[in-house]
Amino acid sequence: MSTTTCTMKLSHLSSLLTLTLFFFCCFQLKAEASTPLSQLPHPLDPLSPQELTLVQTTVLNKYPKPTNTVFFHYVGLDDPDKGTVLKSLASHSEAPRNAFVIAIINGQSHELTVNLRRSNVVVSDEVHQGKGFPTLTVEEQSEAVELPLKYGPFVESVEKRGLNLSEVVCSTFTVGWFGENDERKRVLRIECFLKNGSANIYVRPINGITILADIERMKIVEYRDNAVEPVPKAENTEYRASHLKPPFSPNLRSYGSHQPQGPGFTIKGHTLSWANWKFHVGYDVRAGVIISTASIYDPEVHKSRSVLYRGYISELFVPYQDPTEEWYYKTYFDAGEFGFGQSMVSLEPLHDCPPQAQFLDMYFAGRDGTPQHLENAICVFEQYGGISWRHTETGIPNEEIREVRSDVSLIVRSVVTVGNYDNVIDWEFKPSGSIKPTISLSGMLEIKAVDITHTEQIKEDQHGTLVSENSIGVYHDHYYIYHLDFDIDGVDNSFVKTNLKTVKVSDNSSKRKSYWTTSSEIVKTESDAKIKLGFTPSELAVVNPSKKTSTGNEVGYRLVPNAAVHPLLTEDDYPQTRGAFTNYNVWVTPYNKTQKWAGGLYVDQSRGDDTLAVWTKQNRGIENKDIVLWYVVGIHHVPCQEDFPIMPLLSTGFELRPTNFFERNPVLKTLSPGIVEWPNCGKP
Amino acid sequence: MSTTTCTMKLSHLSSLLTLTLFFFCCFQLKAEASTPLSQLPHPLDPLSPQELTLVQTTVLNKYPKPTNTVFFHYVGLDDPDKGTVLKSLASHSEAPRNAFVIAIINGQSHELTVNLRRSNVVVSDEVHQGKGFPTLTVEEQSEAVELPLKYGPFVESVEKRGLNLSEVVCSTFTVGWFGENDERKRVLRIECFLKNGSANIYVRPINGITILADIERMKIVEYRDNAVEPVPKAENTEYRASHLKPPFSPNLRSYGSHQPQGPGFTIKGHTLSWANWKFHVGYDVRAGVIISTASIYDPEVHKSRSVLYRGYISELFVPYQDPTEEWYYKTYFDAGEFGFGQSMVSLEPLHDCPPQAQFLDMYFAGRDGTPQHLENAICVFEQYGGISWRHTETGIPNEEIREVRSDVSLIVRSVVTVGNYDNVIDWEFKPSGSIKPTISLSGMLEIKAVDITHTEQIKEDQHGTLVSENSIGVYHDHYYIYHLDFDIDGVDNSFVKTNLKTVKVSDNSSKRKSYWTTSSEIVKTESDAKIKLGFTPSELAVVNPSKKTSTGNEVGYRLVPNAAVHPLLTEDDYPQTRGAFTNYNVWVTPYNKTQKWAGGLYVDQSRGDDTLAVWTKQNRGIENKDIVLWYVVGIHHVPCQEDFPIMPLLSTGFELRPTNFFERNPVLKTLSPGIVEWPNCGKP
Repeated sequence: MSTTTCTMKLSHLSSLLTLTLFFFCCFQLKAEASTPLSQLPHPLDPLSPQELTLVQTTVLNKYPKPTNTVFFHYVGLDDPDKGTVLKSLASHSEAPRNAFVIAIINGQSHELTVNLRRSNVVVSDEVHQGKGFPTLTVEEQSEAVELPLKYGPFVESVEKRGLNLSEVVCSTFTVGWFGENDERKRVLRIECFLKNGSANIYVRPINGITILADIERMKIVEYRDNAVEPVPKAENTEYRASHLKPPFSPNLRSYGSHQPQGPGFTIKGHTLSWANWKFHVGYDVRAGVIISTASIYDPEVHKSRSVLYRGYISELFVPYQDPTEEWYYKTYFDAGEFGFGQSMVSLEPLHDCPPQAQFLDMYFAGRDGTPQHLENAICVFEQYGGISWRHTETGIPNEEIREVRSDVSLIVRSVVTVGNYDNVIDWEFKPSGSIKPTISLSGMLEIKAVDITHTEQIKEDQHGTLVSENSIGVYHDHYYIYHLDFDIDGVDNSFVKTNLKTVKVSDNSSKRKSYWTTSSEIVKTESDAKIKLGFTPSELAVVNPSKKTSTGNEVGYRLVPNAAVHPLLTEDDYPQTRGAFTNYNVWVTPYNKTQKWAGGLYVDQSRGDDTLAVWTKQNRGIENKDIVLWYVVGIHHVPCQEDFPIMPLLSTGFELRPTNFFERNPVLKTLSPGIVEWPNCGKP
Repeated sequence: MSTTTCTMKLSHLSSLLTLTLFFFCCFQLKAEASTPLSQLPHPLDPLSPQELTLVQTTVLNKYPKPTNTVFFHYVGLDDPDKGTVLKSLASHSEAPRNAFVIAIINGQSHELTVNLRRSNVVVSDEVHQGKGFPTLTVEEQSEAVELPLKYGPFVESVEKRGLNLSEVVCSTFTVGWFGENDERKRVLRIECFLKNGSANIYVRPINGITILADIERMKIVEYRDNAVEPVPKAENTEYRASHLKPPFSPNLRSYGSHQPQGPGFTIKGHTLSWANWKFHVGYDVRAGVIISTASIYDPEVHKSRSVLYRGYISELFVPYQDPTEEWYYKTYFDAGEFGFGQSMVSLEPLHDCPPQAQFLDMYFAGRDGTPQHLENAICVFEQYGGISWRHTETGIPNEEIREVRSDVSLIVRSVVTVGNYDNVIDWEFKPSGSIKPTISLSGMLEIKAVDITHTEQIKEDQHGTLVSENSIGVYHDHYYIYHLDFDIDGVDNSFVKTNLKTVKVSDNSSKRKSYWTTSSEIVKTESDAKIKLGFTPSELAVVNPSKKTSTGNEVGYRLVPNAAVHPLLTEDDYPQTRGAFTNYNVWVTPYNKTQKWAGGLYVDQSRGDDTLAVWTKQNRGIENKDIVLWYVVGIHHVPCQEDFPIMPLLSTGFELRPTNFFERNPVLKTLSPGIVEWPNCGKP
């Protein structure tokens, strides 16, 4: 970091004040996330490298090598009960601190709880008896993709196609579940691609081959060479600038941005304070970024008020829509099968995040339990350019009134790349109290190779779009489910559905024949809270029933949804049973520490017996209780040629908006940020 | 404008290149929109001040004073037929140039066409025979609001309430139509407010009084003092920073931004060129901003291709939902009644638009025909901070691949303030070909004064939310209808609906029980193109049926809608008949130069006989024709306390996304913009 000084002009409310300021100038600021946890502990802090190592040694102490084989599939915080967390935060006292571990030990899935405050204490250790397998490790997938290259029949298949084995690269795919009743092994499908001439492997599949690998035994257990399909050409598939020929266009102008006082936020440990917001930026190897204990300062009551205890993406379900032998099984659960956190990638300073961003590193356990360092895992930055509120008043004679407040947002960004797709995940916070999560898709389509170069040759349903010669971009969906554990001014909340209803005027009491009004209903049970959006107009809010505004409105936050997407698979289809959390757009459950994963804890080859749809069959009460709102953001993806060879961002999102949470507009008394003029220091 | 020099660091693709650059430093850049039109004419340029004056003199020459009374209610371009416009642009030849005028001359609405190339040539002059009246003038409203202050009974009413007349300010409201069959006069309702103690008049109505003014005779023709309601207090309603007491919070950090090569766009006349886009930024006193002849450069074919002939907001319908005597009539048509363009307000540099913005001035005719100057009517700026596309590839052994392209958008912004509400209207263009229109609401709620200070006192439906003591924020809707005249690679286009449909597998041909596929349908007629969104999954696109990609897909643009909003009034209710364009979210019509205004040409007191719903009863063919897509963006507004006393922006929008328009991702070969480091020129 370099320190420089310069004279600048600072403008505030349009008046230019010349100030001499010291400022920092640095292209990549690292937040102080690595501050020792002992100084700034938060009971929801993710495991530090030291703690990950402690887990490793503790488990390996109980199951020593070489007698045992131990593979760590999940190591994360065993978060204390909410009451304990809140008490710890309020009293600045230490909370219990344990790790939750899923390890495959001698071929069995163990669930272990490890004490993080003492050495070698395994608090509990149970063997998972149900169906399904834990999240895959990166390492076993890396091993598996090497298997075909040394497997005789595959080498023959490659030769038969006239391809060069040294140009073949393979990738692993989860197999799903399709009603099989046998005892399942941990298996993966493997598909291979050509890497010569282009780094864009996903669009150059070597189709026609079925490979199944047992990843416990790490060997190929099923192999079929069904048909030879042409591998799509490398031409027009490359995306690396260094491998593309000029001209590069369109040309975009350079820019610079600067915050003379530095960024408006501070990060201590994992706790972020910005403007009127304070929240915890956590991380989990399965969930990715977790926003916790978010509270906002209320200038009316001179204190911070709790809003969101925890928000994260619980699962991402991506069912493809090709029923044929090589594609039917593609029904991925990107969080549960591949680990959203473990699939996070390092962000590129300046390009993934603007120059003023600060970056946070994260750590997770590798298969052998060793801490893995994920550099620049999350970035945090302020976004300028919008308007917070405004009004021009021309209705008062002899007065000219124009009041405009510029907006500033805080964005917490991460990118989860599961194979071909890059998911850009933003959490945007506004001083007005709104939280706006956005999901944006980039990366590559999964391509099916076909012997078709023009739509005129298509005789039967290809289950996708011919996005390039020999390349079908297969239809699929993306369903993200957000776990939104609101704590509106306290833990006990209710879910309120306000229906908008037409009232017909038939008694000539008005010159109108109709109008609409609202009727609010406190939703009592989980069943009544299952909502398919888009069919009837309503507003959905989480409120604190024990708290009212001074005029008597219920204090709450409202979900402002985007276009609703509903599943198109039949409810009894196997993938839909496993991804049954998409049956509704909105669900509400009572808080239950163990119900974190909408598709279940063990998702790989799951049978749908541990999903949000199953939990809610209990039809528990949700009134005036600690409740969690689940919201499904969906995209039906009909690929198009613009998505090829790499797709421009396709974004969707929603808003959590304070609704009678504040007595009035909470940014009424916020001033626009000052504007700093580019220095005139070099002026002759 | 001041010119300064400085040494900066320019970073491109992460590598820092030290360049010495000259740069401009200026807080408010005025685009060259005032360049004489003779140099850079575009057949859709709005009328220049000189042309407005020519219209004035020509009409007044035909109808000289004092024999005649002439009031100009609409003066705008009589845009030539599309064929003529396109031919003129292609051949750089002059197009015919006429003005279309609606003037009330001696009490009758005249439609005049005035030649703008010659003096004193009225091409046509017809008297409007139908129902409804033209857009109101600003001046007649300014006169009308003075009427109560000199009207005895009103003065008495004010005294009776113990209020001070000098603190009263009034405002005009259109009366709508509720089935009356009599010959209507041009009348307005007038409501009055208190301005003492707060500039926020809309939240301090003097309710209980009905005033109707004949604005032709400019006198009050109906007056009733029905009931005395308490005027809500001034306390907590003020929004001017200069009138608020500290502390101001939350505090937002200053920032600066800079483009060393200047902005990436150029504006010549009204034609804007930026990155791969070129389009015309027009203006109309009724429509506001009009985007025309938008085309995008296609690097594959080395030429610009047409996308959107014309895009603008055709109407904004705001029906309130209180059927009682003082509120039932509030069913505003903000474009047709008040003029969206005439209601545009000057943007505040630095706050309505970021520092790098350039501003355009616009001109419209006042009631007497004199050109009115609207300074800083539109701003144009580039927005940084997003991602255009990205991928991290971890699947190729021994290779580390991460390619990220930062995004830059171009935003064309205007603000339309119709009384209480400020509509922030953005047109965002992306290098990827997407156009993202956004509507954001700010300003004030219309408040109904009531003798209620707490919800516990509410015994019957108040038709709104008690947002503050004595203040009901009345339920209402905002329906914006966009006129989107696509010309995808030429004028003859088709509208294609691609339905996503579940296919059940019953023959055991797959392990799946279901999947979805698509079936596309070219929509043949206007009736079939009426679509209520949200009920069945589909993709809607405008395509060029004569043009296919090299792989045979139809070249098109797709509508990516937001959450669909449907009207709640009964279809036979008078306001709904007038606002019948909201009956469907999507409509398609054949291009017809006269069908510009979805609520009709004469909207004030209209009876719904000239709406989109009526035009489409012809059920014209729309296949392979020059077609217009109409899209309704709606918000049901249940007010909340945060909207009071001035509301933080509530935004909604949609995307027009190229879909098989390009052969492939058109920004594949775009590099991220360079990053300029803040100068270190003052470094010791």
